[in-house]
Amino acid sequence: MAEKYFSRRNIDFLLNEVFEVNSLTRFPYYADHNDLTFKMTLDTAQKIADNMMYPVFKEMDRQAPVWEDGKVKVHPAVKEFMKEQGKGGWINVDKPYEVGGQQLPSIIKLMAGLIFSAANYSLSVYTALTMGAANLIFTFGTQEMKDQYLPGMYSGEWQGTMALTEPDVGSSLGDLTTQAEDTGKGYYLIKGKKIFISAGNSDAVDNVIHMMLARIKGAPAGVKGISLFIVPENRYREDGGLEYNDVACGGIEHKMGYRGSPICQLSMGEEGDCRGWLIGEAGKGLAHMFTMMNEERLNVGMGATGKVTAAYYASLEYARQRLQGRRLMEKDPNTRMVPIIEHPDIKRLLLFQRAVAEGSLSLLAQLFMYDELAKFGDEKEKYELLLDFLVPIAKTYPSEMGILTCSAAIQILGGYGYCGDFPVEQYYRDIRIDPIHEGTTGIQGMDMLGRKVVMKQGKAFNLFIEEVSQTIDQALIYDELSGMAKQLQENLERLKVVAGSLLEWAMQGKTEEFMADSVLFLEFIGIIAIAWQWLKQAVVCCDKLKNMPADSNINFYMGKIYTARYFFEYELSKTVSLAVRLTSKYKLTAEMPASCFEE
Amino acid sequence: MAEKYFSRRNIDFLLNEVFEVNSLTRFPYYADHNDLTFKMTLDTAQKIADNMMYPVFKEMDRQAPVWEDGKVKVHPAVKEFMKEQGKGGWINVDKPYEVGGQQLPSIIKLMAGLIFSAANYSLSVYTALTMGAANLIFTFGTQEMKDQYLPGMYSGEWQGTMALTEPDVGSSLGDLTTQAEDTGKGYYLIKGKKIFISAGNSDAVDNVIHMMLARIKGAPAGVKGISLFIVPENRYREDGGLEYNDVACGGIEHKMGYRGSPICQLSMGEEGDCRGWLIGEAGKGLAHMFTMMNEERLNVGMGATGKVTAAYYASLEYARQRLQGRRLMEKDPNTRMVPIIEHPDIKRLLLFQRAVAEGSLSLLAQLFMYDELAKFGDEKEKYELLLDFLVPIAKTYPSEMGILTCSAAIQILGGYGYCGDFPVEQYYRDIRIDPIHEGTTGIQGMDMLGRKVVMKQGKAFNLFIEEVSQTIDQALIYDELSGMAKQLQENLERLKVVAGSLLEWAMQGKTEEFMADSVLFLEFIGIIAIAWQWLKQAVVCCDKLKNMPADSNINFYMGKIYTARYFFEYELSKTVSLAVRLTSKYKLTAEMPASCFEE
Repeated sequence: MAEKYFSRRNIDFLLNEVFEVNSLTRFPYYADHNDLTFKMTLDTAQKIADNMMYPVFKEMDRQAPVWEDGKVKVHPAVKEFMKEQGKGGWINVDKPYEVGGQQLPSIIKLMAGLIFSAANYSLSVYTALTMGAANLIFTFGTQEMKDQYLPGMYSGEWQGTMALTEPDVGSSLGDLTTQAEDTGKGYYLIKGKKIFISAGNSDAVDNVIHMMLARIKGAPAGVKGISLFIVPENRYREDGGLEYNDVACGGIEHKMGYRGSPICQLSMGEEGDCRGWLIGEAGKGLAHMFTMMNEERLNVGMGATGKVTAAYYASLEYARQRLQGRRLMEKDPNTRMVPIIEHPDIKRLLLFQRAVAEGSLSLLAQLFMYDELAKFGDEKEKYELLLDFLVPIAKTYPSEMGILTCSAAIQILGGYGYCGDFPVEQYYRDIRIDPIHEGTTGIQGMDMLGRKVVMKQGKAFNLFIEEVSQTIDQALIYDELSGMAKQLQENLERLKVVAGSLLEWAMQGKTEEFMADSVLFLEFIGIIAIAWQWLKQAVVCCDKLKNMPADSNINFYMGKIYTARYFFEYELSKTVSLAVRLTSKYKLTAEMPASCFEE
Repeated sequence: MAEKYFSRRNIDFLLNEVFEVNSLTRFPYYADHNDLTFKMTLDTAQKIADNMMYPVFKEMDRQAPVWEDGKVKVHPAVKEFMKEQGKGGWINVDKPYEVGGQQLPSIIKLMAGLIFSAANYSLSVYTALTMGAANLIFTFGTQEMKDQYLPGMYSGEWQGTMALTEPDVGSSLGDLTTQAEDTGKGYYLIKGKKIFISAGNSDAVDNVIHMMLARIKGAPAGVKGISLFIVPENRYREDGGLEYNDVACGGIEHKMGYRGSPICQLSMGEEGDCRGWLIGEAGKGLAHMFTMMNEERLNVGMGATGKVTAAYYASLEYARQRLQGRRLMEKDPNTRMVPIIEHPDIKRLLLFQRAVAEGSLSLLAQLFMYDELAKFGDEKEKYELLLDFLVPIAKTYPSEMGILTCSAAIQILGGYGYCGDFPVEQYYRDIRIDPIHEGTTGIQGMDMLGRKVVMKQGKAFNLFIEEVSQTIDQALIYDELSGMAKQLQENLERLKVVAGSLLEWAMQGKTEEFMADSVLFLEFIGIIAIAWQWLKQAVVCCDKLKNMPADSNINFYMGKIYTARYFFEYELSKTVSLAVRLTSKYKLTAEMPASCFEE
């Protein structure tokens, strides 16, 4: 049996007790579903993870993909996994029955994804990317495109990618140079280079479908000139067979972690015959891509949460087994050593990890519930705004904090944590990609402060505050939670003060000063968002404890409340210092000339 | 020429302008030295680092040591480097002329060590360990021991180690079980196992001298039963030749980073004839070892500072070269992209690294100056106390913050930072060992709060406050620094309040509550200590700027002042939140039962 790397109990708690996923079956789209179908889906996910994914977690790191003669050889488990996922209907699990989907709520897909990424993040990425790419075709493609590409992608025989980054263009997508020339024959000739393309080439699949951003010849500079294309590695011939489409893989990167998945360099049109098919509207490529991008950003948040979770359980297990030292009151060296979980500093390191893992998962679940309400409920705009507003937090909080929590997992294991015999050093290496891919933390900070806070005259910002306030009101009912409720209320006031202080710069037209610390603002509001989720969970636990659950559940609910308290005592308190910095009128980094880094 | 990985300008600034190392030549021990000998020493260190160390920095990571047939094969550069260091007199550089030393101040040794560890930390460790081990023999050994072991160690032909950790004993050293049985023939028979022994076996040297802790048969349990032994891998025969001493290397660990140096498992006495020689007093082994331990802890701080420095310069260089995006005020996509160093968020990430690198080095220099004053000055006790007090900070601050600064270096490089073509991912992996070895951060926190703050009725604590206050007084003279001076003054008050609040628990006998957040207390006081060093540097810079230096120096001094301001705005402000937590009366981690981690 695999070691424990996630908690089904916690998943069930969030689904059934906090977010009441069953309520979604009131929507006709989910009418065929119930507790049992949800449970069976997650049981199956767990089996796949236990049997196919976790057992090759370390091996895929040790045997990283190899590039040979233009082709990338990946671990054999990838092909097996992709096929299994295709066969099991996982890649289109939330799609309508008409396209072979199972019409499952995306929050169930989230929880399955959490299990997969906790088991083996590198492996989980192959299908997650395919899902995102297929969803773009599903959303913006013509019927012909859907017929041509979706079956291969949904069956796991074809890989999907997002191909944005170029050698000179990463964060500044508006400057990309890959060119598309209209041939008048229904397709474009593509010429250019892309780098850092996850799963951009692999011998695990028969074809790779790149969702690629390029600039149509003659299009204006900047983002307005960018269009979205389907650029398959192998294209259809007239006779329905496949032929090579002049998409060459020129190599892969040697990465610190996340080594089970190849990051490819691609070169299109070296032989002058790389064909791409415009999807969606010309010039709206970036906007279209953001359908996939938001999904992939949530996937990054989910993947980071998975790694945080797995590292937490690895270090928890160690802390229970490892004997070292004695309680501080014990002065007799002849007494037996205690498990290190008895030491307060170890409990702190465990609580930190658990608070980030379960707080982040709760926030992600919240977003996916908003997504359902935006799709099927009555207040579409409200829930779309809330979802949009929270994406940068759900992407960044687990990614950035995960660096620290995986570091805490290593610290619990001490020297062993630094060595390959235990899995935690790999989580630490693997998670470092998350603050980079699908938009760096710097980009997320700019998105949060420069777009999300101000969009629709602050409507999303105010909706967020309303949502948090509702939870505060619920918590105030419980004596044991009123202190935390008040602390969160103070933080909402603090948030308004900080945002107001920053917006003054914007109103004076001082954009650099306004945005200089946007990453810190994202950290600040992220802490508040996670505190909100912890208070929400604590309310449920207090309620359950009142109704006296079976003994076995008391530890779970009490553990949750202690973790919530940990978060308020140790993490939420950080907002005080962040507010000091964010309201400072000295915008050092905007003022300092770059020459002062010279000597 | 090697890329830039440290700043000689900054080293010279600290030595000559801040700490006035030249003043040490007033002590007779250093009478032969002057600016020129110091300069020549560092010129030589720089050459060694440029020519022998930095060029194999990556290669030693890729070609990690291999264990075969009981022997560890290390990179061939190790042997060459050890010999060069021996020949150049580096291993006994601060020792008296009588033992072949050069009587150089330890602060010069520090700066050379910084250059070495910035160039190639794994390689630098071999000699640093030998220095520490040799120093133990120099301090506590008999003349015979000195004659037997020091020449081989000083020449770089023999390796020195510290052998403390055992499979079941890491932080809790009092529980170690390696046994020493008195034979009555002048030596003890040693039996036991040690793990995680850095450079514990290697084909780069002819012999390895382990400074080993063991328990003499019949000795009491706990630390009082521990003695220190010299346990050579090969011992002297009667005829003066060497023979194998039954110290077997059973394997090495596969580590995430710091891969150029092997971490060995050792087994003593498998054949019943491993001999150890008692050094110093029986039962005082741990106290003796702490002579070396303090040195090694400062070495860890220095090594971490070296890696932080090298990562900073790698990311600075990239930030200057890499074009991406435009200033936020620029809306025309046809304009040229700017180097990313122009973006405030990148400046923030650079300033963070620089503040930690140069602040930590300044603190280390301060400690080494205290060391000189303790050895040769009139107020021995005062400077010994200050040195002792600050060791946990000097070890931990660069180690823990270095995780974050090396992460910031990666972030500046984005996807490239995650890949092996650039060096920053290696710094990130390499530095993760530093909060673990030579006493984890948890151990340092307990040392700080449980020993250092309270020792001699708070005498060291008060001396520290006096030292900081002196700097504050000097800064108040300058208008541009008075704001920072006041902020630091407030922080001294905050420190007293926090310490007082914690000590209340101690006085009530509630040891676990007192110590529960000792790691956070260490973080808190560490930030204040680094702020002090930045204010001290800023005072010097203000003074220099008043006297109008050559144009080329203005950027250096201005850059220093901006970095000091960065530290006060972004880092020192963190103490507000830490104080909130540290003065909280809710000691969650002491209260929470471990069972609440169950489900």
